[in-house]
Amino acid sequence: MKEFELIERLTRSLHTNASVLTGPGDDCAVLDLGIPNRVLLFKTDAVVEGIHFKPNDAPEQVGHKALARCLSDVAAMGGTPTAALVTLALPPDFEPSYLDRLYEGMNTLARRYDVALAGGETTTNPERLLVSLSLVGWATRENIVLRSGAEPGDAIFVTGELGGSLTGKHLEFEPRLNEGRWLAQEFGINAMIDLSDGLAGDLPHLLKPPGLGAELLASAIPISREARRAAKSDSAKPGLLSALTDGEDFELLFTVASRDAVRLVDAWKRQFPDLALHCIGKVTAAAGITIRDKHGTRPLNLHGYEHFSKSC
Amino acid sequence: MKEFELIERLTRSLHTNASVLTGPGDDCAVLDLGIPNRVLLFKTDAVVEGIHFKPNDAPEQVGHKALARCLSDVAAMGGTPTAALVTLALPPDFEPSYLDRLYEGMNTLARRYDVALAGGETTTNPERLLVSLSLVGWATRENIVLRSGAEPGDAIFVTGELGGSLTGKHLEFEPRLNEGRWLAQEFGINAMIDLSDGLAGDLPHLLKPPGLGAELLASAIPISREARRAAKSDSAKPGLLSALTDGEDFELLFTVASRDAVRLVDAWKRQFPDLALHCIGKVTAAAGITIRDKHGTRPLNLHGYEHFSKSC
Repeated sequence: MKEFELIERLTRSLHTNASVLTGPGDDCAVLDLGIPNRVLLFKTDAVVEGIHFKPNDAPEQVGHKALARCLSDVAAMGGTPTAALVTLALPPDFEPSYLDRLYEGMNTLARRYDVALAGGETTTNPERLLVSLSLVGWATRENIVLRSGAEPGDAIFVTGELGGSLTGKHLEFEPRLNEGRWLAQEFGINAMIDLSDGLAGDLPHLLKPPGLGAELLASAIPISREARRAAKSDSAKPGLLSALTDGEDFELLFTVASRDAVRLVDAWKRQFPDLALHCIGKVTAAAGITIRDKHGTRPLNLHGYEHFSKSC
Repeated sequence: MKEFELIERLTRSLHTNASVLTGPGDDCAVLDLGIPNRVLLFKTDAVVEGIHFKPNDAPEQVGHKALARCLSDVAAMGGTPTAALVTLALPPDFEPSYLDRLYEGMNTLARRYDVALAGGETTTNPERLLVSLSLVGWATRENIVLRSGAEPGDAIFVTGELGGSLTGKHLEFEPRLNEGRWLAQEFGINAMIDLSDGLAGDLPHLLKPPGLGAELLASAIPISREARRAAKSDSAKPGLLSALTDGEDFELLFTVASRDAVRLVDAWKRQFPDLALHCIGKVTAAAGITIRDKHGTRPLNLHGYEHFSKSC
């Protein structure tokens, strides 16, 4: 059973109440707790040794990643993080100095974005370290950006460059909090998500309600240096395929009305001169994702595309 | 390194901010997020297979316990839970039907206290199931009850009966939400905690600032039927010792000004006729915990007490 099937099955009949504005299926849960003009963002995320990090990865980076993943989800709603709780599930033979360094990495990032580390819990997980973060933050009712909200004709943008994150970036990426909030406040961003499962995996989450589609422009998709380098040594995985399918980019993918696209690009360059922003395609009224390159436009079928790319 | 030493070490220099009213060291973190007259309660707690539950325990009970533990912490502050997120860390060969039943147990409890299950996350933990709950709730600024706040002369009360929880109660206990809120609203409760590490282990958390102590009355400590039964078959562990040291009771331990004690007992009987309430001692101005029985008053030294009890 795949993760999304499992989640769909488990969340089918959960109890809800009037506080829940947006439940399972967006980057954060969105709650109305009576804060004037604001909604509460609520998120949980875990990293597991051997799955999301290796035993010999620098513990500071593990702590950084554990918190940054949650912050990235707040960024994807145009929100501001407030406080986090840390659940550590530890093997009995844990090294206190390892945990000191893990907390140092988490604390450094928390300080940068003024996120209080307000407590948590330690428990036992005999075979491997698991670090679960819970986060609360807020967004204004007016400017919050959901995954849903894209409209036909919207331009699709992505920050930074994609692919190859597992060679290092996944442990040290910067959550796009400033960028997400600026986009939400300054532009009529229609829909946004942070990329954790790869562009091809996450873009469908922005194409709601069902019936929306997207046309991507192959030459516009930004391929990271790491993905290009990997492609040179492994001809089976072209850089574009990495950019489409590698996970853990933690860049922002969003859509905006096409009439605002040029103004957005200009303002972005002034506001964030060190971070690339690329328009990679548009939202269509026809379902399905297509990709266009010099050979024409065809459905984005990753198996098919892999073969096609290799033949170029 | 013991858990409390570890927590003390890790939480020594965490980043904080103006939202944090109460950070590590109370039942929940207490945050000011600008809700008029209210504070936000924020809690995380995990149960791990083989540690907090057995592989063959009923999955409904595992789900119940996972959520009930967090609710018990909200109860201990006189608060009201609002919404929870569920993090499931699963072995690859998990049984979907097991998870259905686990969610059923969680959902039944969530419905009873109107707690929205607003999403969460699934991830991989290869060797064993881990279920981590994150919870937000609220309390009024006026009536919130912290662990700190006890005063010399306060009467010490405990709900229910203590000891022997691991024979079954730990999987099906009722979080004392109604009781905690009523105590906070109707009486000048000074300090409260939920009992997870046993009366002897948790009472010191209520004796803050340092310098406060307590005198317990041995005959007043309510010993559960399970603890009495266990004592009959194991003379090495008298019922009173179980009541003092067994964990996972999830009853409320609180202190109230002695002048309110009689009125409280009367009102309690009318309000909660099916749940026992016992006054088990008083807060003293002298540090340390003593216990009084027919032989006199002596320091509560559990090793010493165990020996002493056996010799009775």
